[in-house]
Amino acid sequence: MAFILTFLGKGGSGRSTLAIATAQKFARQGKAVLLATQDAGPVVGTQLGQSLTATPQSVETNLWAMQLRSATLLEQSWDAVKALEAQYLRTPFFKEVYGQELGVLPGMDEALALDALRRYDASGDYDVIVYDGAGDQTTLRMFGLPEILDWYLRRFRQVFEASDLGKALSPFIQPIANAVLAGDWAGRLEQPSQQAADLLGQGRTAINDPTRVLACLVTTPEAAAVATARHLWGGAQQIGLAVGAVLVNQTTAGTLEPEVFAPLSNHAIPALATQDWAALIDALPDFNQLAQSAPRPIVIDVPARRVSLFLPSFDKTQVTLTQYGPEVTVEAGDQRRNLLLPEELRGRPVQGAKFQDRSLVISF
Amino acid sequence: MAFILTFLGKGGSGRSTLAIATAQKFARQGKAVLLATQDAGPVVGTQLGQSLTATPQSVETNLWAMQLRSATLLEQSWDAVKALEAQYLRTPFFKEVYGQELGVLPGMDEALALDALRRYDASGDYDVIVYDGAGDQTTLRMFGLPEILDWYLRRFRQVFEASDLGKALSPFIQPIANAVLAGDWAGRLEQPSQQAADLLGQGRTAINDPTRVLACLVTTPEAAAVATARHLWGGAQQIGLAVGAVLVNQTTAGTLEPEVFAPLSNHAIPALATQDWAALIDALPDFNQLAQSAPRPIVIDVPARRVSLFLPSFDKTQVTLTQYGPEVTVEAGDQRRNLLLPEELRGRPVQGAKFQDRSLVISF
Repeated sequence: MAFILTFLGKGGSGRSTLAIATAQKFARQGKAVLLATQDAGPVVGTQLGQSLTATPQSVETNLWAMQLRSATLLEQSWDAVKALEAQYLRTPFFKEVYGQELGVLPGMDEALALDALRRYDASGDYDVIVYDGAGDQTTLRMFGLPEILDWYLRRFRQVFEASDLGKALSPFIQPIANAVLAGDWAGRLEQPSQQAADLLGQGRTAINDPTRVLACLVTTPEAAAVATARHLWGGAQQIGLAVGAVLVNQTTAGTLEPEVFAPLSNHAIPALATQDWAALIDALPDFNQLAQSAPRPIVIDVPARRVSLFLPSFDKTQVTLTQYGPEVTVEAGDQRRNLLLPEELRGRPVQGAKFQDRSLVISF
Repeated sequence: MAFILTFLGKGGSGRSTLAIATAQKFARQGKAVLLATQDAGPVVGTQLGQSLTATPQSVETNLWAMQLRSATLLEQSWDAVKALEAQYLRTPFFKEVYGQELGVLPGMDEALALDALRRYDASGDYDVIVYDGAGDQTTLRMFGLPEILDWYLRRFRQVFEASDLGKALSPFIQPIANAVLAGDWAGRLEQPSQQAADLLGQGRTAINDPTRVLACLVTTPEAAAVATARHLWGGAQQIGLAVGAVLVNQTTAGTLEPEVFAPLSNHAIPALATQDWAALIDALPDFNQLAQSAPRPIVIDVPARRVSLFLPSFDKTQVTLTQYGPEVTVEAGDQRRNLLLPEELRGRPVQGAKFQDRSLVISF
């Protein structure tokens, strides 16, 4: 298991530069570090002084770097799908389609990158993984995937099973399975479907734990960059991703007024002068300590029947709370979150909700 | 039908600012213009002097602006899915799920934004639509969607129909349909499936026509921004999106060396000084003229049995040509394109390929 760090902020505020400096900082402390960039262009490679490949390459002592390339990752995933199919179907048909033919559709970049991070995390080869993604809403969609996809699977399975269509189809499933498949379809399909649910659950647990996955905001002192960083801060809470600090980049003007990002600490980072990385590395905060102090996106108090959602940068007119389906839905910052509540609170109606100290406090 | 313009370039190079200036330029020429931003933060609204909503709002004479909000668009699309379902299923089950519950998964932003652009384009309300997207690989994935999704549908339908599984399932489809559905399933499903294929085909045709959809590159004189713009230039060709010019932003230093982006023209744009938009607007090129002169991503010469792919910014070691499946696949810049060839060339083996004047010339 590794500590996964990522940076959110407006384009041009220096996210990739700080990702490199962070990776170097940990490497020089003796940690095994993987720097994985999703920037498809040559810029990160240029800054590191070597062109990047689709597999981790040594850059300096303890530091490996790679470019997450979707076309390559898709080929590898396709091979895995074909292997799974070959295990379950007597006459596989995916085998007729080659990974090398497959184009990259929207969303695949995020799904493939997240899965790659999961595999590098599970490999045990790295203490720290620095993920240099788009750093905007796209990165939030990626880290939100496990929780949201898990919701879709749960909700639609339930609706389908309860429907007339589901009931009418169920007697047909066994005969089809017997006719076409090698044996016991239901039992065999249970296993990969359970595996998928487990993976999503594990992903969600890791993303909700700041000692496993932590984001930091990057901004310049410029107003537009500050506004974007603040917006992404709120958005990160909506997917359960904790934010540890604000890095005020490319400045000798000192930090921002503390109240702009309170309660986060903010750290002035000098601009990168002719490859003088040491000055940047020295200015970076202690990320492990930040992981301990980062405000939690959600705090559930079962005895008090109260759920607090930390939603900085939104005011109450920008947050909508609904209970259409079986779960409570919170909408803010173009993101919707269905609250997966503990048994004791599940299915209870919302009694009240109020904004308090940048948090939405919901009573059940 | 509108003329759709978008800007590609490194974050922080000023894409949104130039999108606003472009929208104003057309509006002041008397065109009805929609400026649609996908930036979820407040920055574009601040620049326009009013906060944006999920529907077009008047900003000045002839100019409307909006924020493409995925959560809202998803709700609208979901209503359309439910209406379709209600038409075809006697006992719909999607109706149990509310649009207000649905979270946004990776890829939905791009699919929903593209569909929204299609609808605003078809509405006839606008002469020009300026789309301010992420401006990076994500935007390319979005405009690549119609061609690539169409390929997936075509390829998998063919493989499925030819498979033992497809053949074994076919006798079951009619009985299930009769048991559950209101009447003639096959005939009724043919229609929406054909409509989907038509939409994808129309989208692809529009995106491949520079007088309908045109991209421009935005860069600052800084080396990293130039390298990113060059990379995106090549990537745009891979999805059939023509690029008209390079805008060298925030500079008084003049244009770049012409050979960096030859044969594109490059245009120096001054930095935005205290809301003095007129200086920016005056420095912008004539986009309609660029649409005529933009190099075409693909040129097919049937009598000569030759296909030329314009692939600037890639050298031949970065381009892979394969023929695993029924189509010829070109891989470059983390994108894969399956060439949909005219009848006369389809299925023919590749005889040779060479790089010539920044183009890959393939002979059949």
